[in-house]
Amino acid sequence: MRNILIELIYDGSGFHGWQKQNNARSVQEEVENALSRITGETVSVTGSSRTDAGVHALSYILNFYTNSEIPAEKFAPALSAQLNPQEIVAVRSEEVDGEFSARFSNDGKRYVYKIHNSRQRNPFLEKYSWYVPYVLDIEEMKKASKFFEGTHDFKGFMAVGGSQQTTVRTIRCCEVYQEGDEIFIEVEADAFLYNMVRIITGTLVYVGCGKISASDMSDIIQSGERERAGMTAPPQGLYLKKVILK
Amino acid sequence: MRNILIELIYDGSGFHGWQKQNNARSVQEEVENALSRITGETVSVTGSSRTDAGVHALSYILNFYTNSEIPAEKFAPALSAQLNPQEIVAVRSEEVDGEFSARFSNDGKRYVYKIHNSRQRNPFLEKYSWYVPYVLDIEEMKKASKFFEGTHDFKGFMAVGGSQQTTVRTIRCCEVYQEGDEIFIEVEADAFLYNMVRIITGTLVYVGCGKISASDMSDIIQSGERERAGMTAPPQGLYLKKVILK
Repeated sequence: MRNILIELIYDGSGFHGWQKQNNARSVQEEVENALSRITGETVSVTGSSRTDAGVHALSYILNFYTNSEIPAEKFAPALSAQLNPQEIVAVRSEEVDGEFSARFSNDGKRYVYKIHNSRQRNPFLEKYSWYVPYVLDIEEMKKASKFFEGTHDFKGFMAVGGSQQTTVRTIRCCEVYQEGDEIFIEVEADAFLYNMVRIITGTLVYVGCGKISASDMSDIIQSGERERAGMTAPPQGLYLKKVILK
Repeated sequence: MRNILIELIYDGSGFHGWQKQNNARSVQEEVENALSRITGETVSVTGSSRTDAGVHALSYILNFYTNSEIPAEKFAPALSAQLNPQEIVAVRSEEVDGEFSARFSNDGKRYVYKIHNSRQRNPFLEKYSWYVPYVLDIEEMKKASKFFEGTHDFKGFMAVGGSQQTTVRTIRCCEVYQEGDEIFIEVEADAFLYNMVRIITGTLVYVGCGKISASDMSDIIQSGERERAGMTAPPQGLYLKKVILK
């Protein structure tokens, strides 16, 4: 069988996340149904990450096996034609090695979190960012973000429900930057714990508000205590930006 | 009675336009219902323009009369609290002269039209721009846009159904500019005919594709023939950007 990789962009607003589930719309199910119609087979896809309800993807990678003889590069336009472009667009497809798995054959991921920091809400940003009305000290947030970089036990930056064997992860970079009234937090790591970027974001916003001091960050991370970190930022500001393929 | 002005931002995606109508959601109805709850009166509002289904507003002005003693500046936050911030946000309210009418007391309006010009669709832009996959010649579009400026009879740039006495309008500026893969067409005029900005946009896109030559623009405008202009661009790329108050 051929192994096909597809890259997607999706707006997660209308989905209960990537993963297929009963009685709720998922990106996976939309894509599997469309690929099944295209190939005439029952297609199961493997995704690079299990994004939560409301989380978006600027670049999502999946793969699936098929006996179809459709040229590999035609799967992306064929898939896009079957989907609502307001929700999911397939931007690229190619044939890959039989061993390739979108879940395992990656060397890390990069997420970006968008905060709308303004005195006024903006309807165009509500589904695509976290609205934070308080004045945030960006310089303190930048200082604090650097403590996340490196290899640490991120036990305190994980929601309950994760089932991983170790909570040690390596954050390659954690950057805070501002464009107009939007603040971005961009994090690249070898792998992520459940809700990790959203808890890092919530913690950095607490730093920006003065609720947590940047100089305490090292202690907070080392403590491994969830309650010392900040709140979990809401899902609609989070975007999977890049899957770093091996 | 007091006369209160309110400025709104709204995402028109979920509405059948500004104007109240039977069996369809309108911005006007949402706002009137909310203001009626706030004041305990039956509120009728006057809007600055009758935006079509799917058209957005970055700054919309309305006014209404009330006996309520709520301080004028409190109406905006009170109204926002009653509305879904993903759709409508009230950004400002103030008491104005009894004679003021959002419909008549303005000296023109500015619209901006957003085109997404790329080989790839983007789900985040689908409801907020017109997707044009063809390569567009921006320099030709800029040249052509200048012919719209000034006082002309814009009979050829109007959808049937307008009920105005004259089709002469003065366009103060018509600018085409690009930011990444987005092209903006910004038009300010003393007043607009029905679908005028959308037909100007469709015509400029035809110029960008080479279907219409910039050097024919003067003739096309003077002819007054709708069929010589371009298509009517779809509503979701259009934004009311500013109402110029007298």
